[in-house]
Amino acid sequence: MTYFDTKLEDVKILEKNDYPKKGHTETILRDNLDELIKELDIKDGASISFHHHLRNGDNVLVPVMKAIAATGVKDITLVASSIFPSMAEIVDLLEDGTITNIITSYISGPVGEAVSHGKLKGRIIMQSHGGRARAIMNGEVEIDYAFIAAPSCDEHGNISGTNGINSCGAIGYAYSDAQKGKTTIAVTDYLAPYPNYPIDIAGEYIDYVLKVDSIGEKSGIVSGTTMITKDPVGLKIAADTLQAMIATGLVKDGLSFQTGAGGISLAVADNLKTYMIENNIKGSFASGGITGYLVDMLEEGLFEALFDVQCFDLKAVESIGKNRNHLKMSGSMYGNPEVSNVVDNLDIVILGATEIDTDFNVNVTTGSHGMLMGGSGGHQDTAFGAKVSIIVSKLFSSRIPFIKDRVDVITTPGNTVDILVTERGICINPLRSDLIEKFDALKVPHITIEELKKIAEDAMGKPKNIEKTDRIVGLSQSRTGDILDYIYEVK
Amino acid sequence: MTYFDTKLEDVKILEKNDYPKKGHTETILRDNLDELIKELDIKDGASISFHHHLRNGDNVLVPVMKAIAATGVKDITLVASSIFPSMAEIVDLLEDGTITNIITSYISGPVGEAVSHGKLKGRIIMQSHGGRARAIMNGEVEIDYAFIAAPSCDEHGNISGTNGINSCGAIGYAYSDAQKGKTTIAVTDYLAPYPNYPIDIAGEYIDYVLKVDSIGEKSGIVSGTTMITKDPVGLKIAADTLQAMIATGLVKDGLSFQTGAGGISLAVADNLKTYMIENNIKGSFASGGITGYLVDMLEEGLFEALFDVQCFDLKAVESIGKNRNHLKMSGSMYGNPEVSNVVDNLDIVILGATEIDTDFNVNVTTGSHGMLMGGSGGHQDTAFGAKVSIIVSKLFSSRIPFIKDRVDVITTPGNTVDILVTERGICINPLRSDLIEKFDALKVPHITIEELKKIAEDAMGKPKNIEKTDRIVGLSQSRTGDILDYIYEVK
Repeated sequence: MTYFDTKLEDVKILEKNDYPKKGHTETILRDNLDELIKELDIKDGASISFHHHLRNGDNVLVPVMKAIAATGVKDITLVASSIFPSMAEIVDLLEDGTITNIITSYISGPVGEAVSHGKLKGRIIMQSHGGRARAIMNGEVEIDYAFIAAPSCDEHGNISGTNGINSCGAIGYAYSDAQKGKTTIAVTDYLAPYPNYPIDIAGEYIDYVLKVDSIGEKSGIVSGTTMITKDPVGLKIAADTLQAMIATGLVKDGLSFQTGAGGISLAVADNLKTYMIENNIKGSFASGGITGYLVDMLEEGLFEALFDVQCFDLKAVESIGKNRNHLKMSGSMYGNPEVSNVVDNLDIVILGATEIDTDFNVNVTTGSHGMLMGGSGGHQDTAFGAKVSIIVSKLFSSRIPFIKDRVDVITTPGNTVDILVTERGICINPLRSDLIEKFDALKVPHITIEELKKIAEDAMGKPKNIEKTDRIVGLSQSRTGDILDYIYEVK
Repeated sequence: MTYFDTKLEDVKILEKNDYPKKGHTETILRDNLDELIKELDIKDGASISFHHHLRNGDNVLVPVMKAIAATGVKDITLVASSIFPSMAEIVDLLEDGTITNIITSYISGPVGEAVSHGKLKGRIIMQSHGGRARAIMNGEVEIDYAFIAAPSCDEHGNISGTNGINSCGAIGYAYSDAQKGKTTIAVTDYLAPYPNYPIDIAGEYIDYVLKVDSIGEKSGIVSGTTMITKDPVGLKIAADTLQAMIATGLVKDGLSFQTGAGGISLAVADNLKTYMIENNIKGSFASGGITGYLVDMLEEGLFEALFDVQCFDLKAVESIGKNRNHLKMSGSMYGNPEVSNVVDNLDIVILGATEIDTDFNVNVTTGSHGMLMGGSGGHQDTAFGAKVSIIVSKLFSSRIPFIKDRVDVITTPGNTVDILVTERGICINPLRSDLIEKFDALKVPHITIEELKKIAEDAMGKPKNIEKTDRIVGLSQSRTGDILDYIYEVK
């Protein structure tokens, strides 16, 4: 350290006239987006980050990026934790060269289609939520400007997701951006009295507070299915999934559990709830994006605590404001593989899949025809961390084949995917001979994934290969930083 | 960013056999200090940090440093946020060359005396609390190993100051060490069930959890005077201080306030409380090390919130566990001059002093005979940040002269010290002509500091210069990183 390099006698003592002047720092509060963008003096090639806690209701990413584009800045790397259909206007900024590269964990809608159609001049890097946190926290991804949608913020930068017109609860994915962004801007439509609390991100990490009319619409948090399925096929899968969970031996006191917000996943949670009540089982924690179903389980004492990185519905938002054991966590704490994280403590995770292959690799990044319409989110992280990862899916849900020889894009490596539950049978990854033994001992039927694939192909025919060009438009990244797969342009 | 340097076609895709293996990270839990120290393989010249929230009751710093010394490692830089009399055994480690340099914000007792007597081979750097946070957060001070006394911690590193046998409430000075320490060790005597909450420092920042029998004794938090003075002279000073505060025009709705835990400072808080109740004044916040007196004011609705960086008594510890508006803050949030911080929002701070000079420079670093027996703590930070800083002190408290031509060591530069209140008169810094006008308008009497100095000297005689050698043993640092003064060896 430089403190010890100079001889003490040679250390210069500050002259009285040079003492730092007493007085208050200038205000960091701004009220005009365009003027702030000018003040920031963003250069070509800068990286700009956003978090996605308002999901499809976000109205920060698009206005900020349009304001930046209006200054003529080019060659931006957009580091957005997720990109939703409501952000369609970004397509223009890919085409005019404002945005050259994208790093994200989820992309759906027009922007994803535009990228798949080769409209991005650079490339897209698809990360997991934990991989994003890892890369930002360790400096692999540098953020020049972090714009943080803040449901509430005081004039000194203390952000709370709990207060405000658009309170969205947990804002876990924004922590890394606030801590590591070289310049950080809280964008808020609710300027709270100082001090704003509970403090999620402290003012010490915020350089500017921008007051705007609206950061979006919190009802947009609830996107996709966040209701228990009523479809009998889905309900059968959910019932079989509970049996599979029980067969693993992990459904007992101390259970830790994560499930998504899809209709079948929520039905699994509902079945689990009943089973835990009937068998007087008290779990340790549930984690992830949190829904009201998990809040109910918390409030009924079925879990000691919830670890919440983002609220998936407004009941979760309400709970995080009042339940002491509904804990907020950062994206890094959730799934950063380089630190002590929550996914490593999971017993069971229930996940969806767009496709799976005979190596148990899962694709949730691209959909039919290879179009970008998703991404890992926490898929890869939880599959890796959980003692048992279970994919739940209908075998026959559309004309699109579900089991393939090789998925279009590897989102989650097959060595971390343990069980597949469909309406036509349960498959166990052969790597998990321990699980196969347990299922056999309990006489829970299962078949090989090759057998299940044959059942599907006998009914639907062999899947055709997706037609793609030779041009690579992006990469699917492992949470550890390695590259798992190419993403190709779609014809 | 390296993500965009390689041609897409040349990006290497991870082979199936090289996929990160599913499975759980090894435990970070350890139960033997000596074995952990061996495992850490600490090298000569390393920097080792500690926080001081258990104050004189801490039993982490000494055992850890003795265990390190036992391995034969030399030339350590000890980065301890404060050093208390109970840490006397450290003196041996200065003498045998285990510890070469010290960076701290407060030092009293045998270790301070040993440093003043030249027993440190290198030097001591005396920082303010905010200056420490600044230097750690911006990388100026590098921490190789941070040992964090954790009142409670789970096996995955989630630390809470609220729980445990030795719950000490806020642990604000440990945040920077946890975030920036290259290797971080939570040392706890209360291994909480996972997840431990409320989480103060998340497991993502912790590399090891060391379970020990005892981290100390929380009754040691209460050190020095934390009772309202009963001395009539002290009470007169406190009454006059309230009048001075009122004269500044700042005692009104929205008041923000900080005071220390000394007997006169607490009497000021007590007077202020009565005045606020009588005049129906509702303040914004009180900050700092928090005592039960401020908790009472919070609970009576006299302040919207408390910002607590460390609890000074057990009533504060109890409050922080139950009052939602008793907010925890990091040392950086408290006083780091490079970020949006709390001291910059202070209206009035009440501070003590060992000596003051006619330039209003304050010394709280050395005592009689120039011996190290204190340090800035938050003194410099709050004097700088507050609109008005008020020093309260008896003019005649011992045979030691209080007002000098030049203080022995400049802890807090005079340009940030605004008012001095003694039993023999109030002095206003001539730099604050605005305050002089206000006092004159309200006919609040005040005299010049030269006049007050003469009163003291007429009674006690002119102070003798402290006898020191020519050897410099350390430096008093400005919170901004500049050096304010030398600290000399004492004969």
